[in-house]
Amino acid sequence: MTQAQAPIGLAVFGAGRIGRIHAGNAHASPLGEILHVADISSAAAEDLADACGAKVSSVEDALADDRVGAVIIASSTDSHAGLIEASARAGKAIFCEKPLDLDVETARNSLAVVEQHGVELCLGFNRRHDPTFNQLKLEVVNGAIGNLEMLTITSRDPAPPPADYIGRSGGLFRDMMIHDFDMARWLLGEEPVEIIAVASVLVDKQIEALGDVDTAMAVLKTASGKLCHISNSRRCSYGYDQRIEAFGSGGMVSSGNAKATHLNWADEHGYHSEVALPFFLERYADAYRLQLEKFFRKLVGEAVEMPNGVDGLRALEIADAAQRSHESGAPVSLV
Amino acid sequence: MTQAQAPIGLAVFGAGRIGRIHAGNAHASPLGEILHVADISSAAAEDLADACGAKVSSVEDALADDRVGAVIIASSTDSHAGLIEASARAGKAIFCEKPLDLDVETARNSLAVVEQHGVELCLGFNRRHDPTFNQLKLEVVNGAIGNLEMLTITSRDPAPPPADYIGRSGGLFRDMMIHDFDMARWLLGEEPVEIIAVASVLVDKQIEALGDVDTAMAVLKTASGKLCHISNSRRCSYGYDQRIEAFGSGGMVSSGNAKATHLNWADEHGYHSEVALPFFLERYADAYRLQLEKFFRKLVGEAVEMPNGVDGLRALEIADAAQRSHESGAPVSLV
Amino acid sequence: MTQAQAPIGLAVFGAGRIGRIHAGNAHASPLGEILHVADISSAAAEDLADACGAKVSSVEDALADDRVGAVIIASSTDSHAGLIEASARAGKAIFCEKPLDLDVETARNSLAVVEQHGVELCLGFNRRHDPTFNQLKLEVVNGAIGNLEMLTITSRDPAPPPADYIGRSGGLFRDMMIHDFDMARWLLGEEPVEIIAVASVLVDKQIEALGDVDTAMAVLKTASGKLCHISNSRRCSYGYDQRIEAFGSGGMVSSGNAKATHLNWADEHGYHSEVALPFFLERYADAYRLQLEKFFRKLVGEAVEMPNGVDGLRALEIADAAQRSHESGAPVSLV
Amino acid sequence: MTQAQAPIGLAVFGAGRIGRIHAGNAHASPLGEILHVADISSAAAEDLADACGAKVSSVEDALADDRVGAVIIASSTDSHAGLIEASARAGKAIFCEKPLDLDVETARNSLAVVEQHGVELCLGFNRRHDPTFNQLKLEVVNGAIGNLEMLTITSRDPAPPPADYIGRSGGLFRDMMIHDFDMARWLLGEEPVEIIAVASVLVDKQIEALGDVDTAMAVLKTASGKLCHISNSRRCSYGYDQRIEAFGSGGMVSSGNAKATHLNWADEHGYHSEVALPFFLERYADAYRLQLEKFFRKLVGEAVEMPNGVDGLRALEIADAAQRSHESGAPVSLV
Repeated sequence: MTQAQAPIGLAVFGAGRIGRIHAGNAHASPLGEILHVADISSAAAEDLADACGAKVSSVEDALADDRVGAVIIASSTDSHAGLIEASARAGKAIFCEKPLDLDVETARNSLAVVEQHGVELCLGFNRRHDPTFNQLKLEVVNGAIGNLEMLTITSRDPAPPPADYIGRSGGLFRDMMIHDFDMARWLLGEEPVEIIAVASVLVDKQIEALGDVDTAMAVLKTASGKLCHISNSRRCSYGYDQRIEAFGSGGMVSSGNAKATHLNWADEHGYHSEVALPFFLERYADAYRLQLEKFFRKLVGEAVEMPNGVDGLRALEIADAAQRSHESGAPVSLV
Repeated sequence: MTQAQAPIGLAVFGAGRIGRIHAGNAHASPLGEILHVADISSAAAEDLADACGAKVSSVEDALADDRVGAVIIASSTDSHAGLIEASARAGKAIFCEKPLDLDVETARNSLAVVEQHGVELCLGFNRRHDPTFNQLKLEVVNGAIGNLEMLTITSRDPAPPPADYIGRSGGLFRDMMIHDFDMARWLLGEEPVEIIAVASVLVDKQIEALGDVDTAMAVLKTASGKLCHISNSRRCSYGYDQRIEAFGSGGMVSSGNAKATHLNWADEHGYHSEVALPFFLERYADAYRLQLEKFFRKLVGEAVEMPNGVDGLRALEIADAAQRSHESGAPVSLV
Repeated sequence: MTQAQAPIGLAVFGAGRIGRIHAGNAHASPLGEILHVADISSAAAEDLADACGAKVSSVEDALADDRVGAVIIASSTDSHAGLIEASARAGKAIFCEKPLDLDVETARNSLAVVEQHGVELCLGFNRRHDPTFNQLKLEVVNGAIGNLEMLTITSRDPAPPPADYIGRSGGLFRDMMIHDFDMARWLLGEEPVEIIAVASVLVDKQIEALGDVDTAMAVLKTASGKLCHISNSRRCSYGYDQRIEAFGSGGMVSSGNAKATHLNWADEHGYHSEVALPFFLERYADAYRLQLEKFFRKLVGEAVEMPNGVDGLRALEIADAAQRSHESGAPVSLV
Repeated sequence: MTQAQAPIGLAVFGAGRIGRIHAGNAHASPLGEILHVADISSAAAEDLADACGAKVSSVEDALADDRVGAVIIASSTDSHAGLIEASARAGKAIFCEKPLDLDVETARNSLAVVEQHGVELCLGFNRRHDPTFNQLKLEVVNGAIGNLEMLTITSRDPAPPPADYIGRSGGLFRDMMIHDFDMARWLLGEEPVEIIAVASVLVDKQIEALGDVDTAMAVLKTASGKLCHISNSRRCSYGYDQRIEAFGSGGMVSSGNAKATHLNWADEHGYHSEVALPFFLERYADAYRLQLEKFFRKLVGEAVEMPNGVDGLRALEIADAAQRSHESGAPVSLV
């Protein structure tokens, strides 16, 4: 048996819902050890620090600690760029929740700083780590469906986020469909060169007042002619709808929704099974855990595929293009 | 193109529900032509004769008509044996609804008369003609599951028949499970040598008062050790439950229930699909049609597999044994 | 019981594959009686006429026969307009296979002639008569999914048609996706006002040489903001892929593919079921039969919903717009 | 927040496959702390002790340690009774893998010792802790299917165990079907009063030479007339087949097999999905974890339902009766 790897010292920036998920996974992993928790709410920071045996620190103090090898950025989107740059300058490896930023230029600048300091930056596109989607990609790569020709991604949230979140989210394309753009790039195996996006407000008129949409479809095309359809809704009565269908010259591989149990009922009204898992915390619980584990393993030198800063930037650029396509009513080139 | 076969002249004995089904299929087939309809209710006979362009006749007159090549016996069970014998003596080919009779001796005597006069006798075990079960048998025969080891037959009616029917039905084993015994023999590929049957009254206490049961399980064993489980209920809330599962050394092939459409719903209560088709007329509509077509084709000399009198007798013997096993609480030998 | 309706005298124009389907259904129906069959191939006409007990006639003679109440136009697309007009002038009710014509102006002129002579014209959009899709529409209309918001139509043929057919088909949008445009109009409950279509040649380079595409996606939008996605491929390894998913405020209703049996296998490679039914003749066998039956019932005065000339024209206009969108790379208005 | 509970000190007896599973779950739980590991193989004990931060001890030393509050018995079946009694005398709470013993009298004597010393004894019937089966039981208890009438349990192992295991296993009924007997008792809600078991050797003739069977069916009946069917095979090509179907007056609830992903394929051979999870370690991974967690929670005073010594004894008695029924060919009373 080889000597055990010392756990990587960690600072967690952001103690909200997603920060607690990452911290919980990091705490349970033998590969990481949370040393610092920072949050603008000291109560939130203290709760999380207590639960993880860490201490509450300022970002500056955390970054100044030599024992910290990596940071987990799970704070609000508008703080991502600044924290990435500060962490890069401090020489820390970075795991950052998506998106890099809502502004492409800002994101590019952050990536330049990361590049300059030569630190690792991994983006939190959780779906890439879902075991089912990983197997789906493997099937496509291994030729189970021949040449991939059409990709269909269905992604529907159970309910719209609060109005104040909508207001600072950057809009459906940058906040929600950005995940699907990343999945499309990951699965298509080549870059999309054009996008057309069409959107409506059908769920909640308040979303229209905020300048956003809640129902959207997009079609992407790659240079070789592959087509990808994405369907988004901010509201779904039967749970969190997360399906992918890859169609190719030799067949189709698709992924249905996960449910809490394997039960089926039959009665005078018909056959029944459960709703889909309620939302991303349940649907992607394994993915969140595996994502951080892979990040840690990458830091100790294993050859692990992780979405990086360029992936984050590219998804953001596509989201920007989708927004422009929706506004102009015309296709937008991605090259 | 070969010269067209003249249709077979037919007499239909019994103008009730099942008689109308067979007459409708015979009338629609170019291979048969209904000439006579007989029923103890002249109104029923007239209605059916009108619908088929036939005339109402007595059994005697129908059997005396030289144009009649075959009879369809769909009258009440207690008249089957007499009609089989009379038809055999008249030299007519016979299609008879199951069962031959409720009494094994009577059935044997009828078969002796049939044998003596050398006429064709086919039994109305409709399930043998269901396209899905036919394919299932073909899979088993073709080795898709290796050696068949265990057979599981689930058969549940939507609701109990009327009390007066129960009273003269011969009981669940002879009236209902007899179909499953025939399926077991057909699919196992060898004769069962022992049966154990266990039964209860859980659906309707009136059935107990009539000396019958409404819920039953049986296990059959063949000489080579194959096992077969049968599950029956006289009541099923989600439609007519008709499933078969064949398990073998190399795999399993099973047949689920048929539904009216391919729709699936999803809403806040979960995913839903329709109930199973309501009862045998819907579930086995194709089987009833194909059954008669095969009977006609057999009569014109084609090599067609049809259940015959021995199949009818053997199923009845197993049903008798099941009844005795239920009453005695002990297994009953079938050899 | 009311007096039986005398069957409607019919002339069938076109004795090819689809003509034989319609003639077979008409022949089997008590509501229609085929009197004349016309085809440019006298051999084909004779075969079909023989099978139906009709006689081979010229179109002119058939239309001059006073006993002919209705015509079934199943000849090649370029003859539809002329036959519609001639039949209308002869005062015959018309059932015409889709499309009316490949040219919108020609189609409009034909409809004007139909209108002028006040005859019934029904279009052969077979899918509207599929029992599963009918139930799906009923569910949507009855509010089973709340307000319909997104419609997803997947339609993939098993294999491309022969090159000579492609050449005169009018292209994928007018020949294949036109069915989906009709389904979209029928199910959306309001007219689409804009379409964007994106297409590729991924299946067969020969199709590109013929100026056509074989892989296409389209997105339609209605005035109220409903979105509809259509996915087409000219080749599908697992059968004829015909699925519809309707998503709304209260849920989703979707229709999977039909298979020949209800069997499922399990072995060391996993669980298996059959491919989808091979192509439209199998998948829509019931629809073809019901379609003609409804046409006949409409002619005898029943209130039956049938797609008419305007439906045919509208689908063609959308197909034209899709073709222009594909060529220009821009959305095309449909109003 | 209440003060944290100090973890329960544990001794693990048995460091084989199942011992490592339990030790792994205990080690990962904040509620337990493994202090001692004992095994007849000192190498196995050392490996496991190292992995858990525990020390290798003799049973005597472990039981003499006052810090030990509970023992986990996962050694070979023939040592269970002795370890239960020794642990009870030492006043330790006991979690014991099934079965208590292969001999009913020995098991009864052990339970008497447990009773005398007033210690907690929980039996390792892992399936009772499977989330899907728990939900199924809840549905039955809550009346989702009305009155339960028929229970069908299908349980098939992927491959027979090694011959030497078979030889000392007590036979299929005591080793394998005992799990199903426990599930039957748990789900039926009342005791079975009679059993009939039928068995064959169809998988491996070597098993016959060892005096055992590999293919078996049993039917149990309760006092109120509920029927339960159990189907077992020692070999299953498509994974570990673990299904339960509960049928009642108002409907049916059933549980299918779990698979590693949610993927579905379609190609020219049909539609496909994965095999069932390979064996109990994968299928019941959650159940093993939850089982131990519930044991710990019970020890700290929570009201948790756990199978106890009487459950273990009762399942063994039914297994004995099944063996006798198989040998005698007659039903065996369970009262």
